[in-house]
Amino acid sequence: MASYATSSLSPPTVPTELHVQNRRKLFASLRCLLEESSRPLNGFVFLQGGEEQTRHDTDHTELFRQESYFAYLFGVTEPGFYGAIDIESGNTLLFAPRLPQEYAVWLGEIKSLSFFKEKYMVTMVYYTDEIGKVLHEQHKGSGKPLLYLLHGLNTDSNKFAKPADFQGIENFETDITMLHPVLTECRVTKSDLELAVIQFANDISSEAHIEVMRKTTSGMKEYQLESIFLHHTYMYGGCRHCSYTCICATGGNSSVLHYGHAAAPNDRTLEDGDMALLDMGAEYHFYGSDITCSFPVNGKFTSDQSLVYNAVLQAHDAVIAAMKPGVSWVEMHKLAERFIIESLKKGGILFGDVEEMMFHRLGAVFMPHGLGHLLGIDTHDPGGYLQGPERSKEPGLSSLRTSRNLLEGMVITVEPGCYFIDALLVPAMDSSDTSKFFIHKIVDRFKGFGGVRIESDVLVTATGCRNMTSVPRRVSDIEAVMAGAPWPLPHPYA
Amino acid sequence: MASYATSSLSPPTVPTELHVQNRRKLFASLRCLLEESSRPLNGFVFLQGGEEQTRHDTDHTELFRQESYFAYLFGVTEPGFYGAIDIESGNTLLFAPRLPQEYAVWLGEIKSLSFFKEKYMVTMVYYTDEIGKVLHEQHKGSGKPLLYLLHGLNTDSNKFAKPADFQGIENFETDITMLHPVLTECRVTKSDLELAVIQFANDISSEAHIEVMRKTTSGMKEYQLESIFLHHTYMYGGCRHCSYTCICATGGNSSVLHYGHAAAPNDRTLEDGDMALLDMGAEYHFYGSDITCSFPVNGKFTSDQSLVYNAVLQAHDAVIAAMKPGVSWVEMHKLAERFIIESLKKGGILFGDVEEMMFHRLGAVFMPHGLGHLLGIDTHDPGGYLQGPERSKEPGLSSLRTSRNLLEGMVITVEPGCYFIDALLVPAMDSSDTSKFFIHKIVDRFKGFGGVRIESDVLVTATGCRNMTSVPRRVSDIEAVMAGAPWPLPHPYA
Repeated sequence: MASYATSSLSPPTVPTELHVQNRRKLFASLRCLLEESSRPLNGFVFLQGGEEQTRHDTDHTELFRQESYFAYLFGVTEPGFYGAIDIESGNTLLFAPRLPQEYAVWLGEIKSLSFFKEKYMVTMVYYTDEIGKVLHEQHKGSGKPLLYLLHGLNTDSNKFAKPADFQGIENFETDITMLHPVLTECRVTKSDLELAVIQFANDISSEAHIEVMRKTTSGMKEYQLESIFLHHTYMYGGCRHCSYTCICATGGNSSVLHYGHAAAPNDRTLEDGDMALLDMGAEYHFYGSDITCSFPVNGKFTSDQSLVYNAVLQAHDAVIAAMKPGVSWVEMHKLAERFIIESLKKGGILFGDVEEMMFHRLGAVFMPHGLGHLLGIDTHDPGGYLQGPERSKEPGLSSLRTSRNLLEGMVITVEPGCYFIDALLVPAMDSSDTSKFFIHKIVDRFKGFGGVRIESDVLVTATGCRNMTSVPRRVSDIEAVMAGAPWPLPHPYA
Repeated sequence: MASYATSSLSPPTVPTELHVQNRRKLFASLRCLLEESSRPLNGFVFLQGGEEQTRHDTDHTELFRQESYFAYLFGVTEPGFYGAIDIESGNTLLFAPRLPQEYAVWLGEIKSLSFFKEKYMVTMVYYTDEIGKVLHEQHKGSGKPLLYLLHGLNTDSNKFAKPADFQGIENFETDITMLHPVLTECRVTKSDLELAVIQFANDISSEAHIEVMRKTTSGMKEYQLESIFLHHTYMYGGCRHCSYTCICATGGNSSVLHYGHAAAPNDRTLEDGDMALLDMGAEYHFYGSDITCSFPVNGKFTSDQSLVYNAVLQAHDAVIAAMKPGVSWVEMHKLAERFIIESLKKGGILFGDVEEMMFHRLGAVFMPHGLGHLLGIDTHDPGGYLQGPERSKEPGLSSLRTSRNLLEGMVITVEPGCYFIDALLVPAMDSSDTSKFFIHKIVDRFKGFGGVRIESDVLVTATGCRNMTSVPRRVSDIEAVMAGAPWPLPHPYA
């Protein structure tokens, strides 16, 4: 092991109590809501866990990762489960698949129901072929028992959660409207136990980013940076999943916001003089991280690179300085835009009145994406548009995954960026409304520059916020760490 | 990079000609078949490529990997395509998704149709919304054009390939019986260009196995072995996908044939005295590898470990020595069983007449899985039961993924194993038919031993076969390499 980079971290044990607390939070919220609407305090919250997926008609099995709402409530890592919460008693039930005897030969020990009862700290465990019978037995009242099923819109994907289904569900009353908003709102603010997991995902991912930064040199392939990141987080952090496909964009690719997928697969060769934009985050025990570092491949910022980088860093720092409960995320987005525009003006790229530029949504030309999103069991954690203002129609603001006011306990990414994207710049520089703001000759110099994004995961606290990500951010710090300095650096980071 | 293990390999460029040849092979086979059955030589082979999948209702996108039949014929890495071969002219057509303008901002440059025409060496490229119109235009005859669609049973998964579908398909005649067996049979034997890719997947995976072997020590977690393998094959081989989920089984886990999935996730701590069974293979440009190495975690075989290991190695070597075109795979399976049984008898674990043990299918108690399977674009490549004998009902033989006679150009895994699985051993040792064969006290010593599997990827040649996998196999070679000797070792390997 001596020849490998090592780590100061090791994977923590996550207490199952985390999911017990999540269930209690839902139980209390749902009962409160039922009481408010004078509805009876009985029935069951009833969820279906995920199933293993195979690829097309083959027996190639994708590595299973639990459905997120089910993971939130039950923490079950195995496929094929169902779960219930009795709204009257608070009893919690899991239903495990009944595995055939040959499972023991091919896939491993067949665990007993009491094993799962203990592992997941639920009141009772039965087999999935007993769901109907057991829920009828548990039901104290007359008539068909009521199941609260999960159905509702995910405002990032525009897809709907699919309500649980099982043989015999026709013998139950079902409600598909009540559960989704309550359960989603539970996920919006994080408990201390959840925060500890997100902090570990951040710690190991931060460390891996630094490892990548130190190993980056021209001549490498972008995917080699991805490989180093994945290896570090799995080898030392036990993170088998990433929160999302790694974005390892260098040179012009760094202006492609979601680079790295199969049709743009991190396959460019790094060149001296490139900026790298690496957006990578590991997942630990279902909870994610989402971190972007931007730095020059050769370890030394040019003046143009510093200009754009510092514009984004100032926006990043200004937002974090302003964040606290009650603050509007839309205002934070605009704050970031304003800092970037002002820096670009100071840097001689833009010209004119900043208010007028803001009015013409010039910020969205350089930062077409939203400032950040809720983070948790999903990278784009749900609940962004549960309450409060609807999604804006304006450029940039329309990309915001939430327009809510901040709440204590939210974890939200702060990820301003500044990109030189022809598809946006050319029309804006041609438009009679906005052409005048650009110093065309200077903008042309940034053709092919790509872009810079700086992304941290930030917890909203009672009085402000706390940045959970720890990577070098200042130009001088990045250059020092890339040259071999330890991190954190000995001096304090303002 | 100095502190990292390095590699003698680098990812090769795969000629698109590989897929051109695959299409020509299908074209010729299909025309031949149509002629034999006096059917008209027109219509289109028409396939639908895979789509990106998101996780449940979220916008979490799984890394896309092309559907295997589509990959075989067209080599397209991007999602959302369709492809056609004109049976009359041999012209080949691709249909690309028409991407919205904002794709350029979020996901990357929108490639022109001529870009795809050149990249994939097809006759014509259109958009997917033009499929109906274009195929009608290309159709020379009267009446509705005929589409040969892919529909047929995958005998490993028992699932059916889903025929292509698109808006307007009702204006075509369709045939869903003809294409699947012909196209599947094309995939059964490999071209030289395909073999070169499979060889590279083997080379980088072999090297990664050796890297893992050298780094393995007690105290590590099983998943750390997986991480080292994944990193080596991606970092130095550019392999972003694995052929299958890594099986990193140590100690008792090594008797769980498909260990490593989400419910048995490579999370045990290695102990001094354990055997490790590592079944891992990288995929390169769609083509896979499938390699298993078994070795003691501490680098030195005990006599019991040598006994079981050499039983399996002798079976492995005997099968490879016997393989050539025309040989029955069922006979090879039995040959492996016989070698294992004989070794266990010599080793004092079994007692009695080997023929009688074979008759009572004792081999399947120690090796419940099949000897091996076709390997290609799928790990379990299709075509195992296309022709010739049906699937056997007998223990062990019923697990065979093919019962065919070998053909020149087949790549097939040779993966005998010997496991001590309570769920199989206890009934066999209790049975009045087979109890007598076991020296019970000695078998008891192997409780918790786990198992050994040795798996190589073997090409059937005109006169015999060639092992494409290059890892240390002999006990002395494994011990030498784990102690730091180079691989290949200076002496020849018999």
